[in-house]
Amino acid sequence: MTYPLQTCCSFNRKATCTGAWESTLTNTLSPGDKIIVPCLGQFAVIWINLMKRLNFDVDVIESEWGEGVNLDILLQKLQADRSHAVKAVCVVHNETSTGVTNDLGLVRKSLDEAGHPALLLVDGVSSVGAIDFRMDEWRVDVALTGSQKALSLPTGLGIVCASPKALEACKHVKSTRGYFDWREYLECYKAGTYWPYTPSVQMLYGLRASLDLILKVEGLENIIARHLRLAEATREAVKAWGLTVSAKKPEWDSAVVTGVVVPPWLDSNDVIKIAWKKYNLSLGVGLGKVAGKLFRIGHLGYMNELQLLGALAGVELSLKDVGYPVVLGSGVAAAQGCLSKQTPLIASRL
Amino acid sequence: MTYPLQTCCSFNRKATCTGAWESTLTNTLSPGDKIIVPCLGQFAVIWINLMKRLNFDVDVIESEWGEGVNLDILLQKLQADRSHAVKAVCVVHNETSTGVTNDLGLVRKSLDEAGHPALLLVDGVSSVGAIDFRMDEWRVDVALTGSQKALSLPTGLGIVCASPKALEACKHVKSTRGYFDWREYLECYKAGTYWPYTPSVQMLYGLRASLDLILKVEGLENIIARHLRLAEATREAVKAWGLTVSAKKPEWDSAVVTGVVVPPWLDSNDVIKIAWKKYNLSLGVGLGKVAGKLFRIGHLGYMNELQLLGALAGVELSLKDVGYPVVLGSGVAAAQGCLSKQTPLIASRL
Amino acid sequence: MTYPLQTCCSFNRKATCTGAWESTLTNTLSPGDKIIVPCLGQFAVIWINLMKRLNFDVDVIESEWGEGVNLDILLQKLQADRSHAVKAVCVVHNETSTGVTNDLGLVRKSLDEAGHPALLLVDGVSSVGAIDFRMDEWRVDVALTGSQKALSLPTGLGIVCASPKALEACKHVKSTRGYFDWREYLECYKAGTYWPYTPSVQMLYGLRASLDLILKVEGLENIIARHLRLAEATREAVKAWGLTVSAKKPEWDSAVVTGVVVPPWLDSNDVIKIAWKKYNLSLGVGLGKVAGKLFRIGHLGYMNELQLLGALAGVELSLKDVGYPVVLGSGVAAAQGCLSKQTPLIASRL
Amino acid sequence: MTYPLQTCCSFNRKATCTGAWESTLTNTLSPGDKIIVPCLGQFAVIWINLMKRLNFDVDVIESEWGEGVNLDILLQKLQADRSHAVKAVCVVHNETSTGVTNDLGLVRKSLDEAGHPALLLVDGVSSVGAIDFRMDEWRVDVALTGSQKALSLPTGLGIVCASPKALEACKHVKSTRGYFDWREYLECYKAGTYWPYTPSVQMLYGLRASLDLILKVEGLENIIARHLRLAEATREAVKAWGLTVSAKKPEWDSAVVTGVVVPPWLDSNDVIKIAWKKYNLSLGVGLGKVAGKLFRIGHLGYMNELQLLGALAGVELSLKDVGYPVVLGSGVAAAQGCLSKQTPLIASRL
Repeated sequence: MTYPLQTCCSFNRKATCTGAWESTLTNTLSPGDKIIVPCLGQFAVIWINLMKRLNFDVDVIESEWGEGVNLDILLQKLQADRSHAVKAVCVVHNETSTGVTNDLGLVRKSLDEAGHPALLLVDGVSSVGAIDFRMDEWRVDVALTGSQKALSLPTGLGIVCASPKALEACKHVKSTRGYFDWREYLECYKAGTYWPYTPSVQMLYGLRASLDLILKVEGLENIIARHLRLAEATREAVKAWGLTVSAKKPEWDSAVVTGVVVPPWLDSNDVIKIAWKKYNLSLGVGLGKVAGKLFRIGHLGYMNELQLLGALAGVELSLKDVGYPVVLGSGVAAAQGCLSKQTPLIASRL
Repeated sequence: MTYPLQTCCSFNRKATCTGAWESTLTNTLSPGDKIIVPCLGQFAVIWINLMKRLNFDVDVIESEWGEGVNLDILLQKLQADRSHAVKAVCVVHNETSTGVTNDLGLVRKSLDEAGHPALLLVDGVSSVGAIDFRMDEWRVDVALTGSQKALSLPTGLGIVCASPKALEACKHVKSTRGYFDWREYLECYKAGTYWPYTPSVQMLYGLRASLDLILKVEGLENIIARHLRLAEATREAVKAWGLTVSAKKPEWDSAVVTGVVVPPWLDSNDVIKIAWKKYNLSLGVGLGKVAGKLFRIGHLGYMNELQLLGALAGVELSLKDVGYPVVLGSGVAAAQGCLSKQTPLIASRL
Repeated sequence: MTYPLQTCCSFNRKATCTGAWESTLTNTLSPGDKIIVPCLGQFAVIWINLMKRLNFDVDVIESEWGEGVNLDILLQKLQADRSHAVKAVCVVHNETSTGVTNDLGLVRKSLDEAGHPALLLVDGVSSVGAIDFRMDEWRVDVALTGSQKALSLPTGLGIVCASPKALEACKHVKSTRGYFDWREYLECYKAGTYWPYTPSVQMLYGLRASLDLILKVEGLENIIARHLRLAEATREAVKAWGLTVSAKKPEWDSAVVTGVVVPPWLDSNDVIKIAWKKYNLSLGVGLGKVAGKLFRIGHLGYMNELQLLGALAGVELSLKDVGYPVVLGSGVAAAQGCLSKQTPLIASRL
Repeated sequence: MTYPLQTCCSFNRKATCTGAWESTLTNTLSPGDKIIVPCLGQFAVIWINLMKRLNFDVDVIESEWGEGVNLDILLQKLQADRSHAVKAVCVVHNETSTGVTNDLGLVRKSLDEAGHPALLLVDGVSSVGAIDFRMDEWRVDVALTGSQKALSLPTGLGIVCASPKALEACKHVKSTRGYFDWREYLECYKAGTYWPYTPSVQMLYGLRASLDLILKVEGLENIIARHLRLAEATREAVKAWGLTVSAKKPEWDSAVVTGVVVPPWLDSNDVIKIAWKKYNLSLGVGLGKVAGKLFRIGHLGYMNELQLLGALAGVELSLKDVGYPVVLGSGVAAAQGCLSKQTPLIASRL
C-alpha cells in the first residue's frame, strides 16, 4: 500500500465521514454532473441520498445486498457514455452494512477498458488502514476515511486524500462550497499555516499516535494480514453455527466486518439486544432493507485474536438465549482452528 | 440568561464554528436571499466571505474596526426595505478580532422599530457562556457557538440553537444542504435516535462536564461577572501602560478579549513574538487590516484573577523587551486595584 | 459483607501489600511474639520470611500446596498453648499462588473453640472486594489489601483495617515503627488532618471512583456472585481440557484465580510464554515450589464473561501450541454452559 | 550535576519521602548507632523524631530556624569523636519549612577536615532536580527524594540513591528491615527482575516522562538556573513589600521555596486563608515553631516566570486584604525587574 504523498493532498476536517463525502463531491464535481454509483447497501444509500441533495445526476447501479459492484453493467455504462458525460464513478470500498468489499483494481480496469476519464471517488471509511488499498496503482482520485475506524481514534476527523487530477477539478467545478472548500486549505498549505480555521489539536495528536502504532509498531502489512485472519476466523465460526455470511461470494468477503444472516423465524435484533444487555457485547444492527435479517460482527481496528474469540463466544451465548440451536463452543472452536495456524508471534516479543 | 429549551432546538455537529455558520445560513435562507451584515472585524469578514461563496446577496454595513454595529444605518436599511426583501440580519455578538461586543438588545430594537420580520442570526462563538446572552428576550433566531471558547473544551463541536421561526424556515428554504442539514437531525430527534451519523462521544462527555462546571459549580451569573471583572482589570492595565484598547467606546468593550493598540512605530507582532518565545505567553495577533497594529489579550473561559495578572505581567515584560517605555508593574498594579475591590470569595471555600 | 466503620480504623498508605503486611505486624505485635502462620503457598512464604526478618517467633503450619489451612493442627496448637504465648494467627484469605481460599469462619471457630485470645490477622490482598469477607462476623482484627486487586486501581495503596482490639494493641506493643506507625495516623485522625505526610491524592480519587463502581454501580453482592460465576466457568474449562485445578478440594476453590496443573511432561512456563508472545495473554507463573508445574488464570476485578471466555480460548490455543492434546473450543464450551445459566442481565440495561 | 550511575544504586519504592528516610537509615545504620543531625526546621524535626523511634542515638545540632547547618559545631563534634562512634551525618539539603539551603560541599569539607569516616546521608526531597546537587563531588552516601517535588509527578515514589560505601554498610548493619530492605532489591537487580514486589507501573512511566522533560527537553542546567532566577525574583518582591525572607543570610537562600516573615501584629495564617479562599492560591503555612509567623511561596518544579508573577500578585492582594500596607504591584515590579534581565529565550522556540 502506498500513499502518494508527493502527488496528493490530504485534508483533515473536523467532521464525520458524511462530511468527508460532501467534501469529496463538492470539490470535484459541478451541480448536475452525472455520476455512476453502485448501490450495495445502506451506506451507499446514504451517500446516494446525499448526492441527490447536493444536486448531482446520479446513475445508480443496483446490486442485491450482499453482492459487490456489478462490473459488467459498470463497463457497459462507461462504454456507452461516448460523450463522457459521466464525471465520476463513486464506489464504497467496503460496504459496512453488508460486509462486502469491492475489488477496486477491477473498477479501475473497467474505467481503463472503456477509456473513460471519469474521476474514481472512493469511500474508504472502513477500509483504509485495515484493507489493502492502493491509491497510486488503482489511480484513485479521492479516497476518504474517518478517525473512528481503522485509526482506532475517537470520532471527529474526516480525512480526504486527493489526486492531482482531483485537485485540478477543484479549481474549476461550480459546486457551492463553504466549510469544506479545499481551496481554502490549499491556500493555507501554500502559506505554511495549514489550517484555515481552528484545528482540533487533540485529534491531531491522536492521529500522530495512531499512525505511529500502525506504521512503526505493528506495521501496515501485518495489520492488513491480521484483519484478513480475524475475518476468516469469524466466517469459520458463522459456518459452524449453521448460518451464512451476508457476502454472497467469497470474493466479496470483508476483512473488517462480517454480516451474519439469521433464519427467517428469528429477528436479528433480538440477538443484538441480548448480547448488549447480558454480555456487554455491541453487535451491529441490520440497516435499511436487511433490518432484522442480519447482525454484524465488527473486527476492525486495534483488536486481537482473543478479543475476537471472546466476542464470538458472546454471539454463541446470545444465539442460544434467543432459541437458536447453536452448539456452544462450536464457532469458537472453528475460529480457533483457523487462528491457531495463522497467528504469528508478536514482533516486539520475539 | 435563559435558554428556551422548550421552544428551540440545538444541534451539535462535529465541526468548527465555520461549520456552524454554514449550518445556520443554509438551513434558514435560500440562495440569492438578501441579508444585512455589519462588518466589524476579521471574523465578520470571514463570515461575509462565506456568505458570498454560499450565494447569498450580502448587504454589508461597514464600521471602522473597533466600533460596534452602526445601528442608525441598520435601522435605515430595515425601514427602507418595505418589501421585506431582507431575510436575515447577521450579527457577530462579540467580534474577537477587535474586542468589540455589540448590544444585541439594540439590534433587536432596530428590527422591531422597523417592524421588520427578518431573522436575527447571531455568531455567539466567543460570547455564549461568558457574556450575558438572552435568546428569548432578544428573540434571537439562531445562535451559534463552538466547544473551544467559553465551554473550555477542545475544538470539535459547532453548536447551533434555533428558534421555532428558524426551524420553520428550515423546511422551506432552498439552499443546498448535505452534512449540515437540520432536517436529518430533526428526524432523528423525533425518532429518539438523536444522531443521523456517528456522534463524537468524547466531546459530548466533555460538554456534560463543562456544563456542570458552568451551571452547577461556579454558576452562570458568577461566570459572567468574572469575565466582566477580568476585562475591566485588563483595560485598567492597558491604560496604565499608556496604550489604548481597540474598542472605540466603553459601550463596546468586550468581556472576553481586549485588543491593545500599539504606537505606530511599534509592530504588534514583535510584542507577540517575544511573549511567545521568552515568556510562553500566547497573545492574539492583529488580523486583517489591523495586522501589526494591535495585539489581543484573551480572558475567556476557565480562567481566574491570578492567571490574568500573570499574563499582564508577561505583556509588560514583552513591551519592555521591544523597547516600549513601560513601567514594570504599572499595569499589574492597576489591574490589582480593580480586582481587589471586586473579587468575591470562592463559594465552595466559604 | 460488612465493614465496621464505627469500630475500626482504616489506614491508606502509599505502599504495596508487603508494606501493609509490615504495617499490620509491627503495630499489633512486639519482637519475639509468637505467631501461628499456616503456609499454603508462595505468598505465605514471603510473609513468613518478612515475619522472621521483623523478629517474630513464627510457628508455621505447613500444608501441601493446593490445600487450605490445616484446621486440626491449628486447633491443637491453640489448645496446647495454655499460657497464651501465641499472640496472633496470621492467615492468607486467598492464596494467590495456588488458587486456594480459606474459610475464615472456620479459623475463627478454632480460636473460639480453644478459647484463645490471639489476634486474627488476615491477608485479604486478593479477596477483599471480590470474595465474601466478614470483618465483624469473623472478628478479624486486621484485614489488609492493596489497590491493584479487586479495587482495579494502579498499584500504590496498601490498605489496612484494624479492629478496636488491634488498635489497643498498637498502643502497647514494642515493635520499632517508623513510616508505618499507626499512632501518627490516629493522631492526625483526631486532629482532622488525616495524613501525617503527603498523601497520594490521585490514588485517593481513584479509590473514590472504584468504591463508587463497587458499591453504587454494580453492587458488592453482585460482584461477589460474578467472581464465583467466572471461577466456576474457569474450572469447568479446566476439567474439559482434561487438566486439574491446583486447589485440592472444592471447598478451597478460589473465586479470583485458578491454578491449572499441567502434566509432568509439560513445563507450565512454556504455556505462559506462548500465551504472552503469540496471544498477548498474561497468565500467572507457578511460584516457588510449583514453578513449572502450574499456570494461573486470574479472574479478579473489573472483568466480565466475554473477557474470561477470550482468555480461556487463548489458553486452549497456547496448550495446543505446546503440544498438549486439547480439543479447541472444549473449555470455552464448558465455561459457556456454566455462564449461560448463571449470567444475569446487566442491571443498568434492563 | 552528575549522578554516578555506575557506582551507585537507586531504589524506587512506593512510599513518601518519610518512607525514603526510613529506608535510608535502616539500611545503613544499626540500632543505637550515633548520628549527628543539624536541626534547621520542621522537616528536620520530623526526621529526628523518626530517627529516635527507629532507636538511633541522635546528636542534634540546633540552629535558629532560618539558619543553615552550624558548621563550626559540626566540625568540633566530628573532631571530638576520636573513636568514630558517630556513624552518620544526616543533613536536609533544602529545609522546606524555612526556605534554607545548605552548602553540602562545606559539610563534606568538615567531614574531610576531621578525617571522619561517617556516612553522609542527605535529604534531597526538595532539592534534587532543582538545586545543584553533586553526588560524586560531595561524596554523598545516600541521597533521597520523592516524586512530587522537582520531578513534578504525583506523590507516590520515594527514591533513594546509595553509594558503594552505603551499599556495603547495608550488608552488615543490624536494623530491622522489612518492606524497605535494600537487600531484596539488590537480589532482584542481580536476577534482572528488578522488583521484589508489584511495582507501581504508572509512576514509572511518569518518571520516564519527567526525566525526559528534565534531561532532554529543558536540560538540568537550565532548570537549576530557572529555579535560581525565580527565587531571586521572589526575594526582590518580598523586599519591595517591606518584609523579610526567613533565611537569615543570603548564603542560605533557597532556590525552591521562600519563607516570608510577617510583622508580629499579623497572623501569617490569615494571609494564607484569604489567598486560598479568594484567589485560589496555595501558600505554605509556617510549621512548628514558626506557625503564624511566616508563610511560604513555593517555586519548585515545572513552573515558569509568569506563573510566579501571578502568584506574587496574589500574595500582594492577600496582604492588602488582611490589612498589611502593601503597594499593589510593588513586588511584581521588583520581580519583573529581576526576571527581565535574566530570562532566556525558550530553546525550542528560537
